Amino acid sequence: MAQVQKPSIPKGTRDFSPEQMAGRNYIFDVVKGVFKKFGYKPIETPSMENLSTLLGKYGEEGDKLLFKVLNSGDAFSSLSEGDFQQLNSNALSLKVCEKGLRYDLTVPFARYVVQHRNEITFPFKRYQIQPVWRADRPQKGRYREFYQCDVDVIGSTSLMNELELVQIVNEVFNTFNINVCIKINNRKILAALAEVMGFPEKMVEITIAMDKIDKIGLEAVKEEMLSAGIDERGFNILSPVLTSTGTTEEKLALISSIVSGSEIGRKGVEELTVLFDLISRAGIRQKVEIDLSLARGLNYYTGAIFEVKALDFAIGSICGGGRYDNLTGIFGLPDVSGVGISFGADRIYDVLAGLDKFPKEAIGGTKVLLSNMDSHSVTYLLPLANELREKGVCCEIYPDNSKLRKQFEYGEKNSIPFFVIAGETEAASKTVNIKNLQTGEQVTLPIEEAAEFLVSNK
Amino acid sequence: MAQVQKPSIPKGTRDFSPEQMAGRNYIFDVVKGVFKKFGYKPIETPSMENLSTLLGKYGEEGDKLLFKVLNSGDAFSSLSEGDFQQLNSNALSLKVCEKGLRYDLTVPFARYVVQHRNEITFPFKRYQIQPVWRADRPQKGRYREFYQCDVDVIGSTSLMNELELVQIVNEVFNTFNINVCIKINNRKILAALAEVMGFPEKMVEITIAMDKIDKIGLEAVKEEMLSAGIDERGFNILSPVLTSTGTTEEKLALISSIVSGSEIGRKGVEELTVLFDLISRAGIRQKVEIDLSLARGLNYYTGAIFEVKALDFAIGSICGGGRYDNLTGIFGLPDVSGVGISFGADRIYDVLAGLDKFPKEAIGGTKVLLSNMDSHSVTYLLPLANELREKGVCCEIYPDNSKLRKQFEYGEKNSIPFFVIAGETEAASKTVNIKNLQTGEQVTLPIEEAAEFLVSNK
Repeated sequence: MAQVQKPSIPKGTRDFSPEQMAGRNYIFDVVKGVFKKFGYKPIETPSMENLSTLLGKYGEEGDKLLFKVLNSGDAFSSLSEGDFQQLNSNALSLKVCEKGLRYDLTVPFARYVVQHRNEITFPFKRYQIQPVWRADRPQKGRYREFYQCDVDVIGSTSLMNELELVQIVNEVFNTFNINVCIKINNRKILAALAEVMGFPEKMVEITIAMDKIDKIGLEAVKEEMLSAGIDERGFNILSPVLTSTGTTEEKLALISSIVSGSEIGRKGVEELTVLFDLISRAGIRQKVEIDLSLARGLNYYTGAIFEVKALDFAIGSICGGGRYDNLTGIFGLPDVSGVGISFGADRIYDVLAGLDKFPKEAIGGTKVLLSNMDSHSVTYLLPLANELREKGVCCEIYPDNSKLRKQFEYGEKNSIPFFVIAGETEAASKTVNIKNLQTGEQVTLPIEEAAEFLVSNK
Repeated sequence: MAQVQKPSIPKGTRDFSPEQMAGRNYIFDVVKGVFKKFGYKPIETPSMENLSTLLGKYGEEGDKLLFKVLNSGDAFSSLSEGDFQQLNSNALSLKVCEKGLRYDLTVPFARYVVQHRNEITFPFKRYQIQPVWRADRPQKGRYREFYQCDVDVIGSTSLMNELELVQIVNEVFNTFNINVCIKINNRKILAALAEVMGFPEKMVEITIAMDKIDKIGLEAVKEEMLSAGIDERGFNILSPVLTSTGTTEEKLALISSIVSGSEIGRKGVEELTVLFDLISRAGIRQKVEIDLSLARGLNYYTGAIFEVKALDFAIGSICGGGRYDNLTGIFGLPDVSGVGISFGADRIYDVLAGLDKFPKEAIGGTKVLLSNMDSHSVTYLLPLANELREKGVCCEIYPDNSKLRKQFEYGEKNSIPFFVIAGETEAASKTVNIKNLQTGEQVTLPIEEAAEFLVSNK
C-alpha cells in the first residue's frame, strides 16, 4: 500500500481559499476594469525566462533571490567531476539550470517589447497581472510567490502619461472606497539636489537617507549623511527640503530656488509643475501631493516617481512606480522612455479586509440552494434551477438525498441566503417553499412564481 | 557598457499579445461565469509544490516530466563528492531540489482538500484556473506551460453531480456558440467487459485498444488485442460493443445483455441509465451520447467518464473528465469520491479562432481616441474623457503632441472606432469633430453632446 503523506506546501507559498479568492478576484477585476477604460491592454509572459534574461537585472542581491529551474532530461550530464570539485555553488547551478522563475514583471516586459518591437504600435499601453517568485526569507507579509499588477506605457515622453497613471490610481481607489494620498517626486530633482550639495556621485546614499526622515527624524538623517561622507554645508542645503510642509506651489518655489543653478534641476521642477497643473484640471478626488523626500529604491527611474499610501489604515505603500528612460537598452533597443506603476494586491487586500470594504455583492457566491428530497422531487426542481441561471442567479441543487438538516447546514455554512424546499407534496401541488436562511422567514409559492421572487429578493 | 542580449524565451513557452489575451480572457470569463452560476468556487494553489507531493502521482513518465526547482541558498552544499560519483542524474537532482512546478491541478487539489479538510464544508465544489508545467518535448499545440481549467465536486457520490457537469459543458459551449458532442461512458462497464471477456487483469490493454477503433478500424483493434494476450472468444464478446451505433436505449440494452452476469457491470449500466434519464430532463441543447469505446487514459477514474468534441472543427477532445473514488487517499483521507472535468483553453481558443466565433464586443478594446493638438486643447478634452469613462466607455487621449496623421494611424492600428479631434478653433467654439475611423464619416458637435453620441453609436 502506498505510504500516506502529511500534506504541506513549500514555505513562503500560500493556498487561497474560496473566501480569499473572492476578495482577490474583486481586486483584480476592479484594476483590470480601470486599466481597460484608459486604453491599456493585457499581455502575459512565461513564468520561466532564460536566466540570461534575468541575471544582472536586479543587482547582486536580486540574482541570489532568483529561483532557478533544473534543466529537464539528464541535467547533470553537463557537469564534470572537475567542475564539481572546482566550482562554487552558484557556478554549479548555472551549469545545470538555464531557466529561472520570473522575479518581477518589468524585466519580462522590457524583453517582450524588444522581442516584439515590429508587431507593436507605439506608444504601447499594457497591463500585466501575474505571479512572481523570490527566494526571500519568508516572513509576515512577505511571500515567495505573490502577484504583481503592473500598468505601463512605453514609447512616449509626454507627461500626459504621468497624469493618466494618477487618474488610474485615483479611479481604482475611488472604486475601492479607500482614501489614499498619492505622493509624487521627480528623480531629476533628487539628482539636482545631490549636484548642488556638491556630491553628484552620492545621489543614492542621499536619497536612501532622505527616505528615512519620517521614521528617524532630521538629526538622525543628518548623522547618516555625514557618515556617508556628505559635508555640513551640503546637508544645510538639503535641510529645508526635508522639513518642507507647504502647499504644492510653496514646495515648487522652495525646490526651484535651491536647484535653479542646475539644468537637470530646472527640468525636474518644470516636469513637476506641468504635471501638477494637469492634475488640477483632471478632476482627481484623492489627495495628491509633492513629497520631496520620496526616493523609491529602483535605480532605473529617471523622472517622475509615485507612491500611494492608505490614509485610514497603517500599512506600507500600496502602489508605486515611476518613469524610466532606458529599460529596453539592455535588450538592444535604446532610448525608449516609459512610465508605469504597480499595484500591491496583497496589501490592498489587507486594507480592504481591515477596513471591511469588500462589497458583499462582489464577494458573494451562490444565492439559492435547492433541496434534494428524493429522485422525483429533485427533477421537479431542475427547470426552476435552469430558469434561475438563465436570469443570472447563481444556484445549486444539493446533490445528495441527505437529511434536510444536513442540507440546511450546507446552505448556512456556505452563506447561501435562500433555500428552496420541495418534496412529494409540493411537486403534486406545483409549489415550492422558500426559506430565507438569514431571517428564518418562509413562504410557499406556485413554482412558476419562484424565480421572479428569488430574483427580486435580496 | 553592458552587453546587448538578443531577447528570447525558453522553448515550449509563449508570450501572449493583447489580441491573444483578449480571446483567452473571454474564454476564462465565460467558463468562470458558468462555474459560478452552478455554485462552484475558485481556489488557487502555489505554483511550486513539494516534490514529495508530486512524485509518483503521474507514473514513471510523469515523474520525468516534472520541472524541478533548485533549492535556494547554497543548493550544492548537501551534495558530497561521493554522491556525485555514485548517484545517477535523477538521484542527484533530488539532493539539490525539494520543490517542483505544478504538473496538473488534480493532485494539488487533492492535497488542498486533505490539508484543509477541517475548514471545508463537503460536498466541496471548486474550480481552479492556473498554469501547469510539463517538460514535454515541445511541438505544435503542445507547450511546456499551459493553463488548465478544472471544475470538481468532491465529497458526494450522487449522479446529480455528473448531470451538473454535463449542464456546465452544455452551457459553456452554448455561450461560445460552438456545437459539440458530449460523449459519456462508465469505467465500471469497461471493468465488467474485461471481466466477462475472461481477462479482468487486462482492462488497461483492452481499453487502450478499444480507444483506437475510430482511427484504425475493427480488424486492427482485434490484432492489437490478440497480441496483448486476449483470446478470440474474449474479442468476440467485445466486438458488438465496438460497432454499436444505436440510440442510447439500444446501447444500454446491448451492454446490459453482455455484462449482466457481472455485479460491477450491472452497477455501471444502472449509473449510465440514471444519468441519461437525468440528462433527458435537464434541457440540454448540445448532443450527448454514450460512447462505449471511450476509455480516457487516467487510471484514477472509477465511474462516469466524459469527453467533449467540437462538431464543426477538426481538433482532439476539448474537454474531458470523470469520477474518481479515492484521489485523496494518498494524502491520508480515504474514500472521498469526487467527479470533475477539465476545459482545454488552448484548444477552445483554436476552435473559436478557426470558426471566427470570438464576439467582437468581448475582444474589443478602446472605443474612442481623443486627439492631442497642443497643451491647451488637450486639457479642453480632459472632462470629455472623464465623462466617457464614467459612462463605461473605454477611451484614451493620445499622449504626445504629434502630427495628426500619426495619431490617426495609432487609432487605426489599434482598431479604435472613433477619433475625437479638437484644436484651438473647436476649444473656442466649444465643439469637437468626431470621425468614424471605419466609415470615414465625420460630424461636428457641441462638446456637451459628444459623450451621448459616442455612447449610443457603434
